[in-house]
Amino acid sequence: MARKKSLTEGIDVAQQILAAAAPLFYERGYDAASIRELALEVGITSSTLYHHFANKQEILYAVIGTFMRDFNATVIPILRDGRRPPVDRLTDVVRLHLTMSDERRSFLLNANQFRASLNPTQLRHILDLSWEYHDAVKALLSEGNAAGVFSIDDADMTTMALLDMLNGVREWFNHAGYLSISDVAERYTQIVRRMVSAGRT
Amino acid sequence: MARKKSLTEGIDVAQQILAAAAPLFYERGYDAASIRELALEVGITSSTLYHHFANKQEILYAVIGTFMRDFNATVIPILRDGRRPPVDRLTDVVRLHLTMSDERRSFLLNANQFRASLNPTQLRHILDLSWEYHDAVKALLSEGNAAGVFSIDDADMTTMALLDMLNGVREWFNHAGYLSISDVAERYTQIVRRMVSAGRT
Repeated sequence: MARKKSLTEGIDVAQQILAAAAPLFYERGYDAASIRELALEVGITSSTLYHHFANKQEILYAVIGTFMRDFNATVIPILRDGRRPPVDRLTDVVRLHLTMSDERRSFLLNANQFRASLNPTQLRHILDLSWEYHDAVKALLSEGNAAGVFSIDDADMTTMALLDMLNGVREWFNHAGYLSISDVAERYTQIVRRMVSAGRT
Repeated sequence: MARKKSLTEGIDVAQQILAAAAPLFYERGYDAASIRELALEVGITSSTLYHHFANKQEILYAVIGTFMRDFNATVIPILRDGRRPPVDRLTDVVRLHLTMSDERRSFLLNANQFRASLNPTQLRHILDLSWEYHDAVKALLSEGNAAGVFSIDDADMTTMALLDMLNGVREWFNHAGYLSISDVAERYTQIVRRMVSAGRT
């Protein structure tokens, strides 16, 4: 029992570290943020923190990896759900991409800077997670095209164009503006339907 | 005669400074690049350089502004040329956007960092130039929609989506890859035709 409790607590502490690290990194900047500050934020000592992560870079890698694995775990099963019409799966994922990115907006706006702080092996694993998502979108576009419900010329380029336009939203979206993020998502699902020639809802 | 010659030389030197500044800023980074280095590159003294630009920030502002004014001067007359079919104007601009951005790729990849180095007044002027382009694209989409040759739901959002997908290309395009930038442009014109429901070529 004692062992089990300690393991559970260990997981909780690691999660608390990651939860505190994300806002610390984007508010203070990754380079300026210190392990000492992060430990203080979580209410543990630096040496307890080092028990969970070898260094600051490992924490950054875990934060990015956790977000991307959660994202993929949500959207990939939807993209691959062969029981549903391709257009429904695609529009659900457009909506999820925009709303989930909006929740992590401050962090994602610094994504390029964060990626540049990873080591090559970490970066490769993170890029693999991006490609997993890209490939699942592309497979759905090809599937819809083959089934005659989409009409596209190049699944690879259409996937790049689609993901770039979705990722672009966080750069200009303004929570104080006249559209909510779900208004934008609604309009973007229509644009994407046109991109794949799936007709309007 | 002497006066005229000196004026012409003045313009040439200013242009040489700007031409040398762009690669220096992206290769060394804006913060690390020095006026001394830049003057050396052009083959003039620092004091001659200061005769043309008050400081490094003014040079950066001039480099960005010159690129954007050149870009707008090329694409906006095409977008507004009412004698040509909207779809031809739109696809020409998609192609130009991609090829002109590719020529300035190294500089544009650091655009966010460069913009963050401008003062608020300079930044406002640069953003005004972006909006001028945005508004001309949006006006063309609305014009095509009203004429029944395009079919879009929201000209503003479609413009944002279109520009984000075009600007995204420079982040992943690889000159060593299997597609040239004009191959990508060819595929993107088809994607854009679908986005505005203009049919294929």
